[in-house]
Amino acid sequence: MSATRREKDTLGELAVPAGARHGVHTARALENFPLLGRAVHPALIRAFGAVKLAALRTNRNLGFFPDPARADALERACRELMDGLLDADIAVDALQGGAGTSTNMNVNEVLANRALELLGLPRGDYGTVSPLDHVNLHQSTNDTFPTALRIAAIRGLRELERQVLALQEAFQAQEKAMAHVVKVARTELQDAVLTTLGRSMGAYAEALNRDRWRLAKAEERLRVVNLGGTAIGTGLAAPTDYIFRVVDELRELTGMGLARAENLVEATQNLDALVEVSGLLKALATTLIKISTDLRVLSSGPEAGLGELRLPPRQAGSSIMPGKVNPVIPEAATQAAILAIAHDQALSTAAAMGSLELNPFLPLAAHSLLESFDLLARACGILRAHCVEGMTADEDRCRSQVVNGTAAATALLPLLGYERVSDLVARAAGRGLRAAGIEEGFFTAAQFDELTSPEAVGRLGFRKPRP
Amino acid sequence: MSATRREKDTLGELAVPAGARHGVHTARALENFPLLGRAVHPALIRAFGAVKLAALRTNRNLGFFPDPARADALERACRELMDGLLDADIAVDALQGGAGTSTNMNVNEVLANRALELLGLPRGDYGTVSPLDHVNLHQSTNDTFPTALRIAAIRGLRELERQVLALQEAFQAQEKAMAHVVKVARTELQDAVLTTLGRSMGAYAEALNRDRWRLAKAEERLRVVNLGGTAIGTGLAAPTDYIFRVVDELRELTGMGLARAENLVEATQNLDALVEVSGLLKALATTLIKISTDLRVLSSGPEAGLGELRLPPRQAGSSIMPGKVNPVIPEAATQAAILAIAHDQALSTAAAMGSLELNPFLPLAAHSLLESFDLLARACGILRAHCVEGMTADEDRCRSQVVNGTAAATALLPLLGYERVSDLVARAAGRGLRAAGIEEGFFTAAQFDELTSPEAVGRLGFRKPRP
Amino acid sequence: MSATRREKDTLGELAVPAGARHGVHTARALENFPLLGRAVHPALIRAFGAVKLAALRTNRNLGFFPDPARADALERACRELMDGLLDADIAVDALQGGAGTSTNMNVNEVLANRALELLGLPRGDYGTVSPLDHVNLHQSTNDTFPTALRIAAIRGLRELERQVLALQEAFQAQEKAMAHVVKVARTELQDAVLTTLGRSMGAYAEALNRDRWRLAKAEERLRVVNLGGTAIGTGLAAPTDYIFRVVDELRELTGMGLARAENLVEATQNLDALVEVSGLLKALATTLIKISTDLRVLSSGPEAGLGELRLPPRQAGSSIMPGKVNPVIPEAATQAAILAIAHDQALSTAAAMGSLELNPFLPLAAHSLLESFDLLARACGILRAHCVEGMTADEDRCRSQVVNGTAAATALLPLLGYERVSDLVARAAGRGLRAAGIEEGFFTAAQFDELTSPEAVGRLGFRKPRP
Amino acid sequence: MSATRREKDTLGELAVPAGARHGVHTARALENFPLLGRAVHPALIRAFGAVKLAALRTNRNLGFFPDPARADALERACRELMDGLLDADIAVDALQGGAGTSTNMNVNEVLANRALELLGLPRGDYGTVSPLDHVNLHQSTNDTFPTALRIAAIRGLRELERQVLALQEAFQAQEKAMAHVVKVARTELQDAVLTTLGRSMGAYAEALNRDRWRLAKAEERLRVVNLGGTAIGTGLAAPTDYIFRVVDELRELTGMGLARAENLVEATQNLDALVEVSGLLKALATTLIKISTDLRVLSSGPEAGLGELRLPPRQAGSSIMPGKVNPVIPEAATQAAILAIAHDQALSTAAAMGSLELNPFLPLAAHSLLESFDLLARACGILRAHCVEGMTADEDRCRSQVVNGTAAATALLPLLGYERVSDLVARAAGRGLRAAGIEEGFFTAAQFDELTSPEAVGRLGFRKPRP
Repeated sequence: MSATRREKDTLGELAVPAGARHGVHTARALENFPLLGRAVHPALIRAFGAVKLAALRTNRNLGFFPDPARADALERACRELMDGLLDADIAVDALQGGAGTSTNMNVNEVLANRALELLGLPRGDYGTVSPLDHVNLHQSTNDTFPTALRIAAIRGLRELERQVLALQEAFQAQEKAMAHVVKVARTELQDAVLTTLGRSMGAYAEALNRDRWRLAKAEERLRVVNLGGTAIGTGLAAPTDYIFRVVDELRELTGMGLARAENLVEATQNLDALVEVSGLLKALATTLIKISTDLRVLSSGPEAGLGELRLPPRQAGSSIMPGKVNPVIPEAATQAAILAIAHDQALSTAAAMGSLELNPFLPLAAHSLLESFDLLARACGILRAHCVEGMTADEDRCRSQVVNGTAAATALLPLLGYERVSDLVARAAGRGLRAAGIEEGFFTAAQFDELTSPEAVGRLGFRKPRP
Repeated sequence: MSATRREKDTLGELAVPAGARHGVHTARALENFPLLGRAVHPALIRAFGAVKLAALRTNRNLGFFPDPARADALERACRELMDGLLDADIAVDALQGGAGTSTNMNVNEVLANRALELLGLPRGDYGTVSPLDHVNLHQSTNDTFPTALRIAAIRGLRELERQVLALQEAFQAQEKAMAHVVKVARTELQDAVLTTLGRSMGAYAEALNRDRWRLAKAEERLRVVNLGGTAIGTGLAAPTDYIFRVVDELRELTGMGLARAENLVEATQNLDALVEVSGLLKALATTLIKISTDLRVLSSGPEAGLGELRLPPRQAGSSIMPGKVNPVIPEAATQAAILAIAHDQALSTAAAMGSLELNPFLPLAAHSLLESFDLLARACGILRAHCVEGMTADEDRCRSQVVNGTAAATALLPLLGYERVSDLVARAAGRGLRAAGIEEGFFTAAQFDELTSPEAVGRLGFRKPRP
Repeated sequence: MSATRREKDTLGELAVPAGARHGVHTARALENFPLLGRAVHPALIRAFGAVKLAALRTNRNLGFFPDPARADALERACRELMDGLLDADIAVDALQGGAGTSTNMNVNEVLANRALELLGLPRGDYGTVSPLDHVNLHQSTNDTFPTALRIAAIRGLRELERQVLALQEAFQAQEKAMAHVVKVARTELQDAVLTTLGRSMGAYAEALNRDRWRLAKAEERLRVVNLGGTAIGTGLAAPTDYIFRVVDELRELTGMGLARAENLVEATQNLDALVEVSGLLKALATTLIKISTDLRVLSSGPEAGLGELRLPPRQAGSSIMPGKVNPVIPEAATQAAILAIAHDQALSTAAAMGSLELNPFLPLAAHSLLESFDLLARACGILRAHCVEGMTADEDRCRSQVVNGTAAATALLPLLGYERVSDLVARAAGRGLRAAGIEEGFFTAAQFDELTSPEAVGRLGFRKPRP
Repeated sequence: MSATRREKDTLGELAVPAGARHGVHTARALENFPLLGRAVHPALIRAFGAVKLAALRTNRNLGFFPDPARADALERACRELMDGLLDADIAVDALQGGAGTSTNMNVNEVLANRALELLGLPRGDYGTVSPLDHVNLHQSTNDTFPTALRIAAIRGLRELERQVLALQEAFQAQEKAMAHVVKVARTELQDAVLTTLGRSMGAYAEALNRDRWRLAKAEERLRVVNLGGTAIGTGLAAPTDYIFRVVDELRELTGMGLARAENLVEATQNLDALVEVSGLLKALATTLIKISTDLRVLSSGPEAGLGELRLPPRQAGSSIMPGKVNPVIPEAATQAAILAIAHDQALSTAAAMGSLELNPFLPLAAHSLLESFDLLARACGILRAHCVEGMTADEDRCRSQVVNGTAAATALLPLLGYERVSDLVARAAGRGLRAAGIEEGFFTAAQFDELTSPEAVGRLGFRKPRP
């Protein structure tokens, strides 16, 4: 039989496990929302620690929290929350009703009880440290939750940027390493003109570079917070002094360039900044899918496919077909990206369905966004470490497709002109363009090799004498 | 320093924690796919137990597994997997590359090692019980994973049906309880003619009934499995006898009316049956959003809103505004539904992106589908238990809007005709239609009350003498 | 200067082009909704003709329309609408507010004015033939629009079924024609075991067959209509006799097995049946994308790709690379399918956002659904006529990949066993498996060819003597 | 019998209508792609005019087009295309395969034939003016189409910005006009504290302001074009001089700050910039849905709803319920926004499915993006002109909810403190807070009115003496 303690809120009394740091509000939420089976994202929990600490300090500085012992205990509890030491105590489901009230109250209760612990007092002694009157002083779910979410999102954004950059650099290294590998390009999956594997790698790096740049730019949108606005953005029940100072305190604490929204009413009811950032994650996701598909296609075969690229083997691919190795890393990255795109849809729908002074679906938006940061950062990470860094070109195969196929024909135009090239292509069947061309005197080996060299293939346009 | 054992696969040797039931294939997968941070869904794990047991028994019956002691141990291990006792050992990430190979191998390794335990032998003694040669005998990921997924999906479907039915019945109970509450209907959120709260409840019940019926019908699509097809559906490396019997064995084991797909090649490469079922979950999700929104709108206010319905209070709504209670349960259900719709998008994209003989994105499809079953079943559950069952009508408010507003005007047409009704509406301003009508002699109180009675309001059409 | 006539509604007077068959309600709608730039779908317009005719006939039969001359004129006008002769007169934008009121009123006004024309009377003489009192008698937008939409949807469904069937049959013809072409299968784009091109074609046919079957089944859901329910499903302002008869009349007129919804209130407010059908279109769309991608991949190259399939050339592919021919038909079909999936999202969102007694976003649902029927039917049509019917196998290439690659190794296992196959694969490099095997005495040419024959490759499982 | 002329391409001869300005390539495309039933967006057609003219001029300047008469004729044809005079001649379906080749060729053929007309020569005399050798000189679909699309998108973006700004200004005007209307705010649709209608309007204006700012910022992403890259971005078959100059020419022609992409290979294969812009359109769409929903909710009733806002009546709402007026404009705007969100999904999917050196689904991306610009610009336009500008507050109703409800209770806290407020609320039932409070001596009328004045309600925080 497990011990309990009784707690009380406006709906009445409820038994709470004696050992729990959470209280009655959390207990109700745990019963109300057994939905996703996963708690609020740790990054959000920790960001809440910073928000609570900023509010507490501001209140202390303004003389609203005169008792130093309790304030010190609460500060330490906030620090622990920030440092991830109380993650396990924030147990409410990520998908909760109430616009995040349950997360805020879970945090308030845990901080109060943790402070009581530090003071050597029993849990639930809210006369001494109150989740509402002390921890939540001058705050509302409606300003703390969005503010904490933005801090968590900025952290997610920065980690993602790092991962995108690392992946970009891995492709840039391959751009150099494969710069000399001439190969057939393909438009609409049909053999087109010549290019190099290096250029393909460079294109991936460039696309990622743009994604990274976009993410970096988006941070400024996340830096605008509504802390101080309380319930609907009018700062109701909060002193003006507090409102003017609390964001400064938070900025200092987090080292992020946070700023108070000019229109707090508006900032409290709209999620469009999250939609914007999520849309950029979607853009990155489409880039990752495109690149992953290319890697799968370029490494297809190895014999009866394109076979130009060799991905590092990561695990046995089949129990029936022994040497088979599959492109499992790009496949996994693709799935992460597809799921991030789906999260974007969820977040956008949640944002669109807000009404009047508040959007009740903020918890879903938070879950979607923070999970997508993780998914994409990890997808970039495995793509880099387990795939891109170890890729090698199948140079023989690339070369063979150049010298034996007709795709190189276009490269010969400057030398031979359309008609002779057409003639050569017709004669080359079965022998390969290079061999046939040399045998039949269309060009020397050196000429062919010059025209299909990495330099020739990569040159921008041609230098043609004007007619 | 934690002890390890060495294991080996075609890529070489690797250290595995000595205490782990999984082996080298799983170890590689754990390193490869740190993506979602969540393991394969338990329902899928347990269904894999049934698939493995069916294969094992079929092999035994056909004489492919002559050693009874090892076979018995393996059977027991499969049973334990089916019963959820080995859930924690299946640790590979739900979002894995390789079309589910890592899940299958994790299962194979855990079953082999668990059988070895039962035989009193050390883990890793695969010469005695082999993950591949024994547990995976005559199987491939490409037939076991889709088959297990369908079994898991059928279980999810059935549980969801139960929850939808229970919610439907709760609305039916309210249909009766609120049958007498006449109120203003609204089309496009504008006051329309009269209706009863009971009819609104009945409409929700009916919509859910149709959802439930659709889900029930969809089960037959999930019953078609490709077990026996092995790698690409040709049954390669499996004996014909086995192929013809293994689904019978599985059908008996699960008690589900499973049938072997006629075209195993096709069944191995396409996920459209999952897309279909997921689309029905999406339909249910839209129903839940619509109903949840209605409950929020009908209970809005309580004063400065529609205020016709009172939802049971589930938790305190605000620290700043004391008595405030929010519709947290419909809000939570809505978020679950939005996320299920997003999963449908992910699954559909995954299905569309398959190629040639296999869809590598099956793990994402599995994750999306099984998570949506949970989300929707739980959303129905909380909506029923924490909201619908405890709802009450604010009868005074409903009545007041009828007698004081002009929405009842249409109900008076049969008595007064258009012109007199228009006249009355013009005069009634400020007094309410009923009072004004009685005062000015348009009707008696009894007449008004008859014309706005639940019976009159609910009557289908009118009985008009033909001209 | 163009002539106008004055018309009047409850908002006041407005000038309408003298030559227009539409009236004031339509004129307002044209001004209100310059959104999509496209009128209501013709199929919906024509279905409205049937609905109006059914209502008119029912009213006549019940004696509500005693004047035979006007009734005859109106019947003829309805017939013309059904036959598409008045399409151009229904000009309101497909994306209109008001839940379709503007479509209904456009129809009502055009039918009234067309009847007046037929009677030799001037347009706008609504005292003689009234859009509201005669054409719309006992109806509401809220029952006519959903009913007409279902009729239009059933027609769209049937045409789509025909197109899917024709495409399926084209693949079945190719299944036979390519039954003998043995080739390398690919799982996760990596060379797997052997299969035949015929089997690939058969898999496409089978997937389409399932799509078609699903669509056929869905028709019954569309057959349930809410005609007679008027504003909110209570049949307000309609005589009971009419309500009981009008659907019978409509069933007879259309030859479709239409039935009145049991719960008209519910049927008036929910769009889930459309969500269901749209979800099936999404399933078909994913099938079409998968197949189209396969066709593009199988025909990639022609040299530096898989090159197993040759699509009929439909247009020159490049001005720079002369002989280049691209898979434009599968590309086009893919885009139609992606758009249909997007429409499903739009429709689902519209359905979820309904509230209380009506869903105001029905016009968007109608647009999305009817456009998707067209898109998918046409995608199937071009895929069949311009691509699948003219496809041929590159048999040499398929054969060459079999005899020269190592993918055939698995097929040799029954003859050689694992070790000797591995030995052979190691020795075969550069020579091809078949040649090397014969030269080194592993097998005779006949043995190799038997083991890689279409029959051997297509056999379900193997017949192995039990151990 | 209609006259035809014979034209020829690499696939053979074909009859083209004698009067058509298009040629054989277009004729094939018309047969190939009867999909959407709508031609390429006019904005794209006109932007193609600019691209073709820039290429032509650059070629002339570099001496590649020595014949002034033909060049002049072509220039004039390009001008006509830019000015929309040849819109009707570009008839290929918007959803075409081939990555836009058919659009480019349709343009090339029409320009050639139009130039021939201007020269007094017969259509089809391509020896004199060739669609390929003259009009398409040094170009490819793969650089002209994306470049034209970006020009069209920039124009769409700018028009959209204008419309968003106008809507924002309309809300700002209402912010002032309704600044004095105190009303009940609502979080989660439940009565919360007091606010003013002006603040609500201000919040809408602010959200739109942010959307507009985002769109403005996005233009720079669209300004980077790949013109000069030809087939795969290597400038193949184009002279270096041309490549370096053509974008300058285009910049001058369009007056847009266009710049050549640094990495043309990358710019040719990726659509992520379109995904980014489309994601911003999605963000705007969610803003529009949120605002439209609010307008519908605030104007709900008018009696049995919130009834605080009166939208200008735009059309009669019901044939059965005479005075009913529905919020048709916000409903229409919502549908346009939902469709734009769906287009974003289509575009994102298309972008993700590109492969290797080209994305074949560019035409779908173009269609989705350009149609969304139109939809959203028009939605903003009707929302402004037909709804926001004419909205009025129902001041009596707003005031009545303040003085009679309990929502004002929080505003009284500074005066009375929690306990006395609770006491008052308990006593006020049925009388209204203001009346009861005055009667029972809690406050004077002046005190109540001060505390619930627009100034008090809008004040940021409170000035509380520190404890």
